[in-house]
Amino acid sequence: MPGESLVIVGATGLVGRTFLKVLDERNFPVERIKLLASSKSAGTEIDFKGDKISVAEFNINQFQRGDIALFSAGAQLSKEVAQTLASNGVTVIDNSSAWRMDSSVPLVVPEVNPLDANWNKGIIANPNCSTIQLVVALNPLRSIASINQLIVASYQATSGAGASALEEMKQQSEDVTHGRDISIDEFPHQIAFNVIPQIDVFEDLDFTKEEWKLVNETRKIFDDQNMLISATCVRVPVAYGHSEAIHINLDKPISVQEAKHVMSAGQGLTVIDNPNNMEYPLAINAEGKMMYLLGE
Amino acid sequence: MPGESLVIVGATGLVGRTFLKVLDERNFPVERIKLLASSKSAGTEIDFKGDKISVAEFNINQFQRGDIALFSAGAQLSKEVAQTLASNGVTVIDNSSAWRMDSSVPLVVPEVNPLDANWNKGIIANPNCSTIQLVVALNPLRSIASINQLIVASYQATSGAGASALEEMKQQSEDVTHGRDISIDEFPHQIAFNVIPQIDVFEDLDFTKEEWKLVNETRKIFDDQNMLISATCVRVPVAYGHSEAIHINLDKPISVQEAKHVMSAGQGLTVIDNPNNMEYPLAINAEGKMMYLLGE
Repeated sequence: MPGESLVIVGATGLVGRTFLKVLDERNFPVERIKLLASSKSAGTEIDFKGDKISVAEFNINQFQRGDIALFSAGAQLSKEVAQTLASNGVTVIDNSSAWRMDSSVPLVVPEVNPLDANWNKGIIANPNCSTIQLVVALNPLRSIASINQLIVASYQATSGAGASALEEMKQQSEDVTHGRDISIDEFPHQIAFNVIPQIDVFEDLDFTKEEWKLVNETRKIFDDQNMLISATCVRVPVAYGHSEAIHINLDKPISVQEAKHVMSAGQGLTVIDNPNNMEYPLAINAEGKMMYLLGE
Repeated sequence: MPGESLVIVGATGLVGRTFLKVLDERNFPVERIKLLASSKSAGTEIDFKGDKISVAEFNINQFQRGDIALFSAGAQLSKEVAQTLASNGVTVIDNSSAWRMDSSVPLVVPEVNPLDANWNKGIIANPNCSTIQLVVALNPLRSIASINQLIVASYQATSGAGASALEEMKQQSEDVTHGRDISIDEFPHQIAFNVIPQIDVFEDLDFTKEEWKLVNETRKIFDDQNMLISATCVRVPVAYGHSEAIHINLDKPISVQEAKHVMSAGQGLTVIDNPNNMEYPLAINAEGKMMYLLGE
């Protein structure tokens, strides 16, 4: 019987493949790796560090005590199996929305609240993509002032909706350009040459689920239930890289210089801020980078 | 010697052609129309109400007392000739930024402050595109509450930068899709599949000229120099139709119902607000419409 593994659930998806890419780039110390996916994708072979690994069909019996499992196969599956796995000694790191707001589950962004991982009971959630970059960007400021109010408008890339969504944008762009009929499956409307102020479904007060995620997850990560947050989440025809226009109100005035100074030292942040030379964060420059670009 | 004319300056540009389209649609009572452009475009023939009109080269001698001149040929030309024309009895309606902030020139949006046109001294300015839709959308609310603070993030279409800019986006989309090198002339960076947080040049406090226009023009039109306004203007790969995410702080609480009620009666506004049926404003639906789509 082999030892513990790092198990990737949803290995053939856009996020699963990115897990592998980052594990490789960071030379993550992994002895045994196991790739799982739905029956549809089982059998796929994926390259990892020169080896071809065959993807197995997801099954709860594929896990053993001591495994670390990275889940990115939808909230439904995470909801169904994470607790069972956790109670059997598997540590589940869950990329879905299933456990994020559960008070017994820490919601962790390594650059912001790494210590929260310590009180996990077998499940650690990581936040939605648009939340992560927001909290990483704002966290350094919190060392010099408190954030009373946060207003954010997002410009979210199609990759956030998965590989077929990204493909749909590209196909629609081609079809619109050549005057052909388009097909819409992954988005509520045409995304090519358009912006759509709906990501996920509408919920309370006609804010979308994506908008509520941003509000509630940010409050949990910053451990501040009083922060006033208003979010407008918008899908734009970009491949990779979410952008956000963020307006904050602090509990005391700080100078622009002071803000820039503390942010440029922020963990995981790369400040690109030379507007007179037309240098500022751009979605196309963020693709494939493990960093958060920041400018004014 | 013929009577007064409606003169369109910049007749072959994207805005000039839209002037003609709207004059036609509204059956604007015009007896004589004169089309002017640069020497480069002189001689072009343009259809208007079944007639072919030949575009003449711009020259100050083309005007006579009583003419109404619609200018959309850049701020430089407007700056040079508008006062001379005005002092010779021509009414200049200027689409450029040249006169907007001049205290002797009214800045008019017909749906918002039509009476300001009355104190003109021969020049009437109309605001920047992103300002117009903002003030038209917010104006109805001002009948029930004052706006203390306004935070806006824009999603601005490429047509706002002119016909060649629009063409550049389309060409770049094709080139990126087919893995070809792109050419960048009209924008500071690639616009296809990207968002660019720079429209026009950077000015004070590293806000762009476009952002300052939105701040200063809105204050002038609403005649409220105390309104706190913060704008982030972003170019997105959309053909026509600017979108804006607007956050406002009022001087007293009003209910969502009350806000919807007063806005649905607002002049020039079409409220599209049925999120559960995926109905809300979309950039692609705004193309060619003389209305401001509004949703939550």
